[in-house]
Amino acid sequence: MNLPKSARLVEVGPRDGLQNEKQPISVADKVRLVDDLSAAGLSYIEVGSFVSPKWVPQMAGSSEVFAQIQQRPGITYAALAPNMKGFEAALTAGVREVAVFAAASEAFSQKNINCSIGESLERFVPLMDAARQQGIRVRGYVSCVLGCPYEGEVRAEQVASVAKELYAMGCYEVSLGDTIGTGTAGATRHLFNVVGRDIPRNLLAGHFHDTYGQALANIYASLQEGINVFDSSVAGLGGCPYAKGASGNVATEDVLYLLNGLGIDTGIDMGRLIQAGARICAVLDKPNGSRVARARQANT
Amino acid sequence: MNLPKSARLVEVGPRDGLQNEKQPISVADKVRLVDDLSAAGLSYIEVGSFVSPKWVPQMAGSSEVFAQIQQRPGITYAALAPNMKGFEAALTAGVREVAVFAAASEAFSQKNINCSIGESLERFVPLMDAARQQGIRVRGYVSCVLGCPYEGEVRAEQVASVAKELYAMGCYEVSLGDTIGTGTAGATRHLFNVVGRDIPRNLLAGHFHDTYGQALANIYASLQEGINVFDSSVAGLGGCPYAKGASGNVATEDVLYLLNGLGIDTGIDMGRLIQAGARICAVLDKPNGSRVARARQANT
Repeated sequence: MNLPKSARLVEVGPRDGLQNEKQPISVADKVRLVDDLSAAGLSYIEVGSFVSPKWVPQMAGSSEVFAQIQQRPGITYAALAPNMKGFEAALTAGVREVAVFAAASEAFSQKNINCSIGESLERFVPLMDAARQQGIRVRGYVSCVLGCPYEGEVRAEQVASVAKELYAMGCYEVSLGDTIGTGTAGATRHLFNVVGRDIPRNLLAGHFHDTYGQALANIYASLQEGINVFDSSVAGLGGCPYAKGASGNVATEDVLYLLNGLGIDTGIDMGRLIQAGARICAVLDKPNGSRVARARQANT
Repeated sequence: MNLPKSARLVEVGPRDGLQNEKQPISVADKVRLVDDLSAAGLSYIEVGSFVSPKWVPQMAGSSEVFAQIQQRPGITYAALAPNMKGFEAALTAGVREVAVFAAASEAFSQKNINCSIGESLERFVPLMDAARQQGIRVRGYVSCVLGCPYEGEVRAEQVASVAKELYAMGCYEVSLGDTIGTGTAGATRHLFNVVGRDIPRNLLAGHFHDTYGQALANIYASLQEGINVFDSSVAGLGGCPYAKGASGNVATEDVLYLLNGLGIDTGIDMGRLIQAGARICAVLDKPNGSRVARARQANT
């Protein structure tokens, strides 16, 4: 069995993580978090989101955050931009890479963004055109790929159909998200096998939530399918909006520990990463969601 | 890739779990926990330990617990018995299956039980003879199989040597324990490959701690090596004695969730298992260490 020799972690803590934290976080604290993550060697950081602050109050100030972070060469600083308005705001803020998202479940799409999957994809067409003209790379997310809080089971073929549309539209990479964390290792492998028929595996990523403790097993399963890009959140920031008090995004530290153990190179410094997570947890006054961080802190 | 069709979970919560909890637990609460676990369909429960209460105060009362639990047919109720004195006490209490343990690390053996690995194995000889005469089955544990809190790395060949001695002595099954939870999936597969040269894989078990979040990935890796017996602790009882505040034994609920997802039969009822864990956590007044239990409770 050949595992990938290297992997890229897409750090979503400042965006997917913080947007699900309850208390307000200052621009300065967000900037510090992003700078800490840059210093730890993350090569891809999702910094913020250009959405209406009416819907996602935690992401207000993303322009200020982009203006104040120290952008290092070789690191991608991305933002979520769900529509043309968000895309234009991101451009104005100097963002050079954006992400768009669609659901694999109709019910989730309706409840989350109030339109069908097809409508949500259509709305991306002008955005994708504009991005192409401006030379902006666009990453695609598909949510609910291994289960939906409203529909339950989601078929891999349905995920493949949505992923394929995002890819055909011009997304250079498609991240498959187990939004509610109900997926297990066998279903994960099946999913990448099915979606991998339409999209080369080196252009697919895995986005796992640890709500049921399965994220690392699913990442190990994904690695065995040749996937080597994974989204994660430092200190497990974010929690699960569908199960209050439960875990959300898998912790970057825990993924890194697995990859280090497997001898898979990421370029990330574990010590600095743990420091970055500890600092933002202190700001938020919440327990660290990374088991590795907790074990290391307990031992020091 | 063929995974096993069924698996057996060895529930160690009442012993390995409770012995690492701080507050005293009444005999009645222990009995209730074991009865709850029987009702949930666990086929193997490690009920207590016949050791000096001077060393392990939480295990005082194991005789009373054995006398009061409702022993159901088809379920094994086992006890730890580290020496002849413990073995005789276990026999008197009516125990029909015991477990012995040795470390794979010399430093751990010295610090934990104050003798060398060789000496600890020698002490089991009369116990094994007596067990054979009485028709008592003996299970063997090897600790520190993927790392030692004092020595660091532990070689798989060293683990194999200790496991082989336990097997040669008459242990019908040898459980390999990642006592400090530092092992990752590749090391786990290597370990079973090496130990599997001397002992048939269907007589080996995996005992993983979730201190670094790796337990389920390691179990998935073990399944791929043909291992289908795993030790776990309901609600993740026990914590880690080597990293205060960190996770210890992997939670039975989370292992069951993985196995259910993979279509591997265990005969365990998830709902009743979660109830058993919730009840003992209420007694202990501590958060539930199972992510599955937390997610399910949050959703109800």
